[in-house]
Amino acid sequence: MEKIETFDSTLRDGAQAEGISFSVEDKIKILKTLDRLGIDIIEAGNPGSNPKDISFFERLKDVKLEHAQLCAFGSTRRSNVKVEDDSNVQALLEAGTPAVAIFGKTSTFHIKKVIRTTLEENLEMIEDTIAYLTNNDKTVYFDAEHFFDGYKLDAKYAVDVLKAAERGGAKVLVLCDTNGGTLPMEIHQIITEIKSQVTAEIGIHCHNDSGLGVADSLMAVDAGARQVQGTFLGFGERCGNASLSSIIPNLQLKMGYDCMPEKSLEKLTSSAIRVAEISNYSLTGREPYVGKSAFAHKGGMHIDAVMKSPSSFEHIVPEKVGNERRILMSEVSGRSTIIQMINEIDPTIDKKSKETTQVMDKIKELEYEGYQFEGAESSVRLLIRKELGRFKPFFTIADFKTIGEKPVDGRALSASALVKVMVDGKEAVNAAEGDGPVNALDKALRTALEEFFPKIKELRLTDFKVRVIDQGATASKVRVLIESTDGVDIWTNVGVSTDVIEASLIALVDSIEYKLLIDMERQIKEYHLY
Amino acid sequence: MEKIETFDSTLRDGAQAEGISFSVEDKIKILKTLDRLGIDIIEAGNPGSNPKDISFFERLKDVKLEHAQLCAFGSTRRSNVKVEDDSNVQALLEAGTPAVAIFGKTSTFHIKKVIRTTLEENLEMIEDTIAYLTNNDKTVYFDAEHFFDGYKLDAKYAVDVLKAAERGGAKVLVLCDTNGGTLPMEIHQIITEIKSQVTAEIGIHCHNDSGLGVADSLMAVDAGARQVQGTFLGFGERCGNASLSSIIPNLQLKMGYDCMPEKSLEKLTSSAIRVAEISNYSLTGREPYVGKSAFAHKGGMHIDAVMKSPSSFEHIVPEKVGNERRILMSEVSGRSTIIQMINEIDPTIDKKSKETTQVMDKIKELEYEGYQFEGAESSVRLLIRKELGRFKPFFTIADFKTIGEKPVDGRALSASALVKVMVDGKEAVNAAEGDGPVNALDKALRTALEEFFPKIKELRLTDFKVRVIDQGATASKVRVLIESTDGVDIWTNVGVSTDVIEASLIALVDSIEYKLLIDMERQIKEYHLY
Repeated sequence: MEKIETFDSTLRDGAQAEGISFSVEDKIKILKTLDRLGIDIIEAGNPGSNPKDISFFERLKDVKLEHAQLCAFGSTRRSNVKVEDDSNVQALLEAGTPAVAIFGKTSTFHIKKVIRTTLEENLEMIEDTIAYLTNNDKTVYFDAEHFFDGYKLDAKYAVDVLKAAERGGAKVLVLCDTNGGTLPMEIHQIITEIKSQVTAEIGIHCHNDSGLGVADSLMAVDAGARQVQGTFLGFGERCGNASLSSIIPNLQLKMGYDCMPEKSLEKLTSSAIRVAEISNYSLTGREPYVGKSAFAHKGGMHIDAVMKSPSSFEHIVPEKVGNERRILMSEVSGRSTIIQMINEIDPTIDKKSKETTQVMDKIKELEYEGYQFEGAESSVRLLIRKELGRFKPFFTIADFKTIGEKPVDGRALSASALVKVMVDGKEAVNAAEGDGPVNALDKALRTALEEFFPKIKELRLTDFKVRVIDQGATASKVRVLIESTDGVDIWTNVGVSTDVIEASLIALVDSIEYKLLIDMERQIKEYHLY
Repeated sequence: MEKIETFDSTLRDGAQAEGISFSVEDKIKILKTLDRLGIDIIEAGNPGSNPKDISFFERLKDVKLEHAQLCAFGSTRRSNVKVEDDSNVQALLEAGTPAVAIFGKTSTFHIKKVIRTTLEENLEMIEDTIAYLTNNDKTVYFDAEHFFDGYKLDAKYAVDVLKAAERGGAKVLVLCDTNGGTLPMEIHQIITEIKSQVTAEIGIHCHNDSGLGVADSLMAVDAGARQVQGTFLGFGERCGNASLSSIIPNLQLKMGYDCMPEKSLEKLTSSAIRVAEISNYSLTGREPYVGKSAFAHKGGMHIDAVMKSPSSFEHIVPEKVGNERRILMSEVSGRSTIIQMINEIDPTIDKKSKETTQVMDKIKELEYEGYQFEGAESSVRLLIRKELGRFKPFFTIADFKTIGEKPVDGRALSASALVKVMVDGKEAVNAAEGDGPVNALDKALRTALEEFFPKIKELRLTDFKVRVIDQGATASKVRVLIESTDGVDIWTNVGVSTDVIEASLIALVDSIEYKLLIDMERQIKEYHLY
């Protein structure tokens, strides 16, 4: 099987998406997820344009990757500036990544109207910059921006641009459909024409403005491209980039190319869920291959046929991409993941033990209620402890009350909460005001508990996500995800209810219990108690 | 320009999507939206399989369409049953639509494994059924299920199936990629091979399991298909059907075919928003052509370039599909829609009047806060009245309090609300318990007001939708949409706040005010007071 190099730009082009905003912590989590999946090259950011990215690249120097090559992104040197004097190019060197992606203009329209230099200098800028970085031991990928639009406008010049990059020593010439407007048959034809005129490897970088990002990428490979760029879930400016989670299985399972080991492909779905969770992006469920609905059967005739023969309404075996067939509303979590977590607490339990079945049943029951535990492993850990009888609550909420009132003036609603907690037979009452009843309840609860557990002061809510599930008349359920940190660890808890206050409280209590639990585990380790 | 027939199956195949459930009212609203847009054929349901669909077709006999041809969907007669004795086929006749889509098996695998008949009888079932319907004056479209999979398995038999349908008198032979697994180049090649063997028109029906639904449809047209089936927003089982809102502009603006008048194409975006609202489907914003982000520019370099020349980062002019460029966070609502609504109240105001600017400014301000008025015209009508000084509140909320408490036993949260309303200087106090604070508040408010406005008893909440906008740490805003009916009219109101209780209350108050307003308008008409 011929190898196709996979190149992910979730952290760079994906960050351009409306509604997406990554913290440094988010970026590192996504990087590790994609690395563990087996993506070949990960473009992590633009150190020249963004001071946040500079500090991110500093942090990355301590992060060990298993497989992926790290890549920084930047532009060619500016016009009328020597390459060694260009601060953006210097920032690329300082980023310390083995690879660098450099974009340059290919379309004469853009050179004249947007960057306003001469066609000749543009070629020099490209060749200079790439040669300089290559001489500094960087592997350089050249992104030919607006390649297809440029080629249609002035094919000769577009090829001259590729040749300049080739002279500079670019390893891959990446043809970009920057505006996402090129049709699949056009992509195929243009790459076929290009192939005979350059010797460097061809890459493809598509956008989804016409709903064709995936198809365009496949057509490019069919015509000879050997590196495919995209973002894992298709995040990106406007309609997004071509989605690697669709492209990779298409190339591998349908077109016979090698993108990653078969075993890695089975992590495709869980990686997608993880990247979505980190990005606070609600998957629609309809995502090809990795969506929750991708192999869900609802129509009666279809279910009947699938029962007789699964391939009758499934284009691939779902397990090959780590997804699963779903019929009616049944939800099943992975037994093998669960047994691993059970074994952390009790190594004597195996897959067939009744304890495992009991935990699985509880998880299924909660998933049926709307819980989703992907990305909320700390809630699963607590659940396992509870089911195994290895959990003593640190506290109980004896009583609480939230009050929402019409404010005397102004538009904001005034909310307050009162909470009574019990710890070892002792009680503490506290009250607080807040921005809505959840916020008030959170404040009151923590303050009440600090009296007994001073380390709760270290606890900080870093993210709060509400998802409406089960939309419909009045009885909409909400799923609340709360991310917390104590400066050492980061964990996420989940709560589900028809009432947003109750859902939040469930997640909040879990988060505090988890903090108290890991504090104890740390103590046990520190004092060699176990 | 050569005509391509558009065929929408949102109401039939789209209803198979996980999470989608249409009421009869929803279906009629979607039907009218698609008809007004200019879709050629609308497949409305399967009267044979679904008693709900039978009553829907009864209702449809009173609905006048401007342009679209209505189509019912069903299967060929059963094996060993005469076509005139088959109840499903009879149901198709009784549906009373001018057109019928009949699906039949094309793949020998499915015939043997799933429906378990002989290859010969399958051909007879197809020919018989189509001939019978044609003789009863129906236009018949034949859906060749699993066509591409079947063709790869046994090309000769797949063509025999098409020929049987042709003999029966089918107007269009629709080649279905039922499992959504066929690649664009395969579609092109197979249709090219088919074209020379049949004379009836070719149609295409794709699914999106490989992320290729749009591309596959375009390749089919390129190879000679002249009817394109899909669902407007890509709703459908698993990963959905090919999305017509992407296919239509691609065919028309890029490939030079005629799908609908240019003026109609400008309604593409508003139609998409409307269909999504009716379906209670949250658009991701990334939808090609019609998504809110489809022409949104975030990257600094890109904004700069777009300012110099829009086409630099836009593949088409957004206005051609009724969408708009967005830079930064600026939100603009359509002035021409607004002036229409203003003129209903005051016909002397025109586009340039200061009142129009004042209303527009208010709408922009609210949109900036997270309001979205598409589908909530009754909230806009109230807003216009308020801005023009043509609104006297029927009531004010003098005070309210919601209380959430830890229940004595059980898991459900117990919530209650107290509300004091003022009407013409008189006050009324009421309290209620409910499923969460919003539900309690709603009950208390209505009961308090019934004393003054007995007609409020007619008011019924038919839908309640919560969308989280602005996701992020703690300060997530929610948008609440409430749909109400009094048995005569149906209307929707919107409220936005960081607090779900406040957002709901805003929408709730608007809904009641609107009811009282239209009651007065009805009285004025009835008594010829104006």
